[in-house]
Amino acid sequence: MTERVVIIGSGPAGWSAAIYASRANLEPLVFEGAMTEENRIRGTLPLGQLSMTTEVENYPGFPAGDLSPYLKSSLPEHHVPFRDPHMTGVTGPELMELMRQQAKNFGTRIVTDDVVSVDLSKKPFEIKTLEGQHVTAHSIIIATGARANYLGLPSEDGFKNRGVSACAVCDGALPRFRNKPLAVIGGGDSAMEEASYLTKFASTVYLVHRRGEFRASKIMAQRALENPKITVKWFTGVEEVLGNDKAGVTGVKLKNLQTNEVESLDVSGMFCAIGHTPNTDFLGGQIKTDDKGYILYSQPFRTNTSVDGVFAAGDVADSYYRQAITSAGTGCMAALDAERWLGAQGIH
Amino acid sequence: MTERVVIIGSGPAGWSAAIYASRANLEPLVFEGAMTEENRIRGTLPLGQLSMTTEVENYPGFPAGDLSPYLKSSLPEHHVPFRDPHMTGVTGPELMELMRQQAKNFGTRIVTDDVVSVDLSKKPFEIKTLEGQHVTAHSIIIATGARANYLGLPSEDGFKNRGVSACAVCDGALPRFRNKPLAVIGGGDSAMEEASYLTKFASTVYLVHRRGEFRASKIMAQRALENPKITVKWFTGVEEVLGNDKAGVTGVKLKNLQTNEVESLDVSGMFCAIGHTPNTDFLGGQIKTDDKGYILYSQPFRTNTSVDGVFAAGDVADSYYRQAITSAGTGCMAALDAERWLGAQGIH
Repeated sequence: MTERVVIIGSGPAGWSAAIYASRANLEPLVFEGAMTEENRIRGTLPLGQLSMTTEVENYPGFPAGDLSPYLKSSLPEHHVPFRDPHMTGVTGPELMELMRQQAKNFGTRIVTDDVVSVDLSKKPFEIKTLEGQHVTAHSIIIATGARANYLGLPSEDGFKNRGVSACAVCDGALPRFRNKPLAVIGGGDSAMEEASYLTKFASTVYLVHRRGEFRASKIMAQRALENPKITVKWFTGVEEVLGNDKAGVTGVKLKNLQTNEVESLDVSGMFCAIGHTPNTDFLGGQIKTDDKGYILYSQPFRTNTSVDGVFAAGDVADSYYRQAITSAGTGCMAALDAERWLGAQGIH
Repeated sequence: MTERVVIIGSGPAGWSAAIYASRANLEPLVFEGAMTEENRIRGTLPLGQLSMTTEVENYPGFPAGDLSPYLKSSLPEHHVPFRDPHMTGVTGPELMELMRQQAKNFGTRIVTDDVVSVDLSKKPFEIKTLEGQHVTAHSIIIATGARANYLGLPSEDGFKNRGVSACAVCDGALPRFRNKPLAVIGGGDSAMEEASYLTKFASTVYLVHRRGEFRASKIMAQRALENPKITVKWFTGVEEVLGNDKAGVTGVKLKNLQTNEVESLDVSGMFCAIGHTPNTDFLGGQIKTDDKGYILYSQPFRTNTSVDGVFAAGDVADSYYRQAITSAGTGCMAALDAERWLGAQGIH
């Protein structure tokens, strides 16, 4: 039996697509990814990047308030994520479980397995998974997201969500960063963006860069350089993230790469702005992407890709906004686009 | 004092923009609209089109479950909308109050007043309101939405949410329409779309059209005509919506406009697909729109309009998807676009 819609990915884009596709009676099949050690290390576990965050303050619809009773009555017991009793609002894993459950309630079928390759030259399309499943589908929605690049230091891992972040817009406004010195690592446009953004909250922002000039566009670099709250550390690498269990990040140990001098800087947060990697390897170049691997939409304000019948949603096609709410928005668009495309093909 | 960002509109796009702009410390000012009788009749009251709907099943993050305790702990008492004790999930007014509260929690300032005109030829922009306020702003986000067109029958008004709808994708999957005969009114692409979509749920769909041919594109019209579940009523107008307080809509009284013959049709729903009107009159033609008045974006996957410093989000720039989640997505995009634009202008 050929599936009408297969959705690959299980972040906000994937679940939003699944909610809309299942409400349109398309009985979508979602490959949510596999619970493998490799995915854990790469940051590509099921439920996406949000599953690795704590508070989500900016997903519209969830102000501060006690969400526990709603979670308990909406989710089967084993799916209620652990919750700090002092938490208000929603956490990343909770938001993802709520969306997943909503898709399930409307008849979405979910497979906990990775898609390892697709053949888009055949109609219907062919899909192969890590566990050896072969599935055919009339249409595919790609919502595999992107993963943040980190420095790869052994000291970094334990401080994620406790001072180490890869998203200033997501985390910058959190109380732990207010009026504190912070470090931003990187030299591209997004490092300039994140550093400038964080000056709204931080007492000082150290912009740490390995080279003596920025890769960023002139205007972005200039904005950062002219900002009195930003201090640039040129020719500097991070040796170690400093901190403890109680306080999280308390500093960074830096090394001047020209003089080999080492210094420790007191900061309560380190923001990695060294790019993201879209999860598009499994496509084997069959869909048009930009040079970083992000899927290109084939027309404005639609989710069609270069292959007829294949749609994309979320961060896998967005290196610019990268928010849960924007991903959920394009997920809905992809489902409606797929539904209309299937109808036009006479597939019901 | 000149505002950095003024947001006009209070649906999902407006509040999403406000949440992001306020988290970016821009202290946005939202004009949420006025509680006037004129706005009630036009369907342009504060909190937008969702404030006139009941269940919202498709906004990602809100599966079935008891939301009451969260509403009570998140919203000030006088803002908790009345709730049917048997309801699960979220209603339109509740979702809007939750978003509004979230924006407020981050410092959004809200004015319950209509913007009646803007002058975009001056910098900063000038904004005038119904109550006579004059405000100047460096940037503006337009999120005024669109209003559904209804037939304007006296019998129609009381049955909204009780069988009369203007959105098949929003409401088609509701239990009251399952395996029941339904009527769709209209002859354009969206009428074809809605009729085809509703055949997934309905026992029969009557497509009621005043003329003897459709305005819809050939392919869309053909899909509808070939669908065995769709019966077209040509040269037919709706005289009256039939029903009662308990059951809601039970039928429609139709009139053949050629023969003047009148018949009653048993249906449990009537879907008006006679278009929407974007709320762009107050712009006085200063922003580029399409011929129906929808704002045109000036570049793909961004929210910039034809006027530098003015951004648009939600249904006011979208005649195609028109979903709460897509509006919230573009609202977030508009706030991030405005924030970056202000930064590039050196306005902090």
